[in-house]
Amino acid sequence: MPDSTRSFMSALPADVRITEVGPRDGLQNEKELVQTTDKIRFVELLAEAGFPEIEVTSFVNPRWVPQLADAAEVLAAVPRRGGLIRSALVPNGKGLERALLAGVDKIAVFTAASEAFSQRNTNATIEESLVRVREVVGGAKAAGLPVRGYVSCVVACPYAGPIEPAQVRTIVDRLLGIGVDEIDLGETIGVAAPADIERLYDGLQGVLAPEASTLHLHDTRGGGLACAFRAMQIGVRSFDASCGGLGGCPFAPGAAGNLATEDLLHLCHRSGIRTGIDREKLLAAGRYMAAALGRRLPGRSFAADATGASASSATTCAGS
Amino acid sequence: MPDSTRSFMSALPADVRITEVGPRDGLQNEKELVQTTDKIRFVELLAEAGFPEIEVTSFVNPRWVPQLADAAEVLAAVPRRGGLIRSALVPNGKGLERALLAGVDKIAVFTAASEAFSQRNTNATIEESLVRVREVVGGAKAAGLPVRGYVSCVVACPYAGPIEPAQVRTIVDRLLGIGVDEIDLGETIGVAAPADIERLYDGLQGVLAPEASTLHLHDTRGGGLACAFRAMQIGVRSFDASCGGLGGCPFAPGAAGNLATEDLLHLCHRSGIRTGIDREKLLAAGRYMAAALGRRLPGRSFAADATGASASSATTCAGS
Repeated sequence: MPDSTRSFMSALPADVRITEVGPRDGLQNEKELVQTTDKIRFVELLAEAGFPEIEVTSFVNPRWVPQLADAAEVLAAVPRRGGLIRSALVPNGKGLERALLAGVDKIAVFTAASEAFSQRNTNATIEESLVRVREVVGGAKAAGLPVRGYVSCVVACPYAGPIEPAQVRTIVDRLLGIGVDEIDLGETIGVAAPADIERLYDGLQGVLAPEASTLHLHDTRGGGLACAFRAMQIGVRSFDASCGGLGGCPFAPGAAGNLATEDLLHLCHRSGIRTGIDREKLLAAGRYMAAALGRRLPGRSFAADATGASASSATTCAGS
Repeated sequence: MPDSTRSFMSALPADVRITEVGPRDGLQNEKELVQTTDKIRFVELLAEAGFPEIEVTSFVNPRWVPQLADAAEVLAAVPRRGGLIRSALVPNGKGLERALLAGVDKIAVFTAASEAFSQRNTNATIEESLVRVREVVGGAKAAGLPVRGYVSCVVACPYAGPIEPAQVRTIVDRLLGIGVDEIDLGETIGVAAPADIERLYDGLQGVLAPEASTLHLHDTRGGGLACAFRAMQIGVRSFDASCGGLGGCPFAPGAAGNLATEDLLHLCHRSGIRTGIDREKLLAAGRYMAAALGRRLPGRSFAADATGASASSATTCAGS
């Protein structure tokens, strides 16, 4: 190795926190109804893999998401293992009541940076959604629970097109004013390139630092890890990901959706970034759900490594 | 927008050159034998999309790759459109003769950074492969043709595991000494993270500058675009990609292989990087080959945008 006049090695976080959202954001997009016992076992396996937080379910009205009608049962059945945070999506006061009864550890509320998306997807204007958010946050705080606030469409909206970073800034500011503890920026249609992530965080300066945010990426155009990597360079160290890439893209039938946990894990471990997650146990959880669904999961690393047929699997992971 | 004390916008190349390798590296890994007329039409459609270079075929012995037995016929049938460079893989002197007769514009030779890979995949030691390379390069130069030199396993070998950057440096140095015009670094098993790309180019300093190289990535673990992006930050501006992500991974059955051209194009265009490639015409070429193969292609953007069913397709591309 020559004396380098320069090195290309870039500074990345030493640790990255991954919230596993497969049981909620993944399964809610799966047409096949998964049995309650399988959901519970899936979450248990994920917990064994070492996630600090798992988004277990959603207390949205079962009429809208029949897949998660068993929210209370699943949540109550998953042990609070060590420091595991079992979170759940909660759309309104009624959902909060159910969530609290079931023993939830953390609440997730949601709004959007796009008016069109808010109306088309949740049948409410952004202002109306923030009224609900305020109500839920109040109740969660009264119960002593932390709250995550999701913002959808932080780069583009499937209906309205490009979203200005300034729109995201406004919504993030409102959520912080309402008192959410964690902002989760959702790149809903998986269209972002690293440049979009740069613009997003440029626009958030003074309101939300990269280090204080969580980023929720999709791999719909293959750019999930590129955006995650750029975000890490910028300082982001908290990400959502979905086991096996569970959950397609509702806006592009047949396309990929959530960033796959195994893919993010692979990048982290090869880059010397600690995640606390056991890769083999994560693959086991994915295999379990693939069997329960009776189909292959879309994640890239999952396809390459979960079957055990890969001649290259020995070289994939530098270790946890 | 606040006065930024700093901006996250990073410097990327203004232009990126993409060599389309689907017809060769993609099709050679497809079990389904594609008709010669379909191969020709596929290449014509790709040429219309504006690629500066298309790897049209390979003059390897048809006994090893029956799919490309029609190499001479396909190459001869594809018009030299404008400045289009029609290149072909050539393993030895016999293949070179056939390629020259068919009117090839550019030759591609190959070797590996891994001894195990060279022996298992080409039945020759690295030294023996370099003897063949020297012979082919001599013949190509005598015919006035430029030569690309592929190096496989630049990060890891499916048989031998991790490859040291110093091994890659040695091989690149040998190829340059033999007189190849372009070095193409192949990340054969799709295991690299951006950190691996950094280490690779760190090790090549003084022998091969990023700006002087071509990078051939795989998306086997979802990291193709992340590696391409880091490479661009480092200064790389020439990449291989495969239409629709054609060509799986021979070392991980069912897994993804080549970086998909549409994915790379999407990242470039959203980042304001010029490629000279027309996205719609590229999608048309992919649709044609998907129909010829009778199956879906694995590329992410292709799945999201080629069917025309995406509600978000209007927001995907900032334009050429």
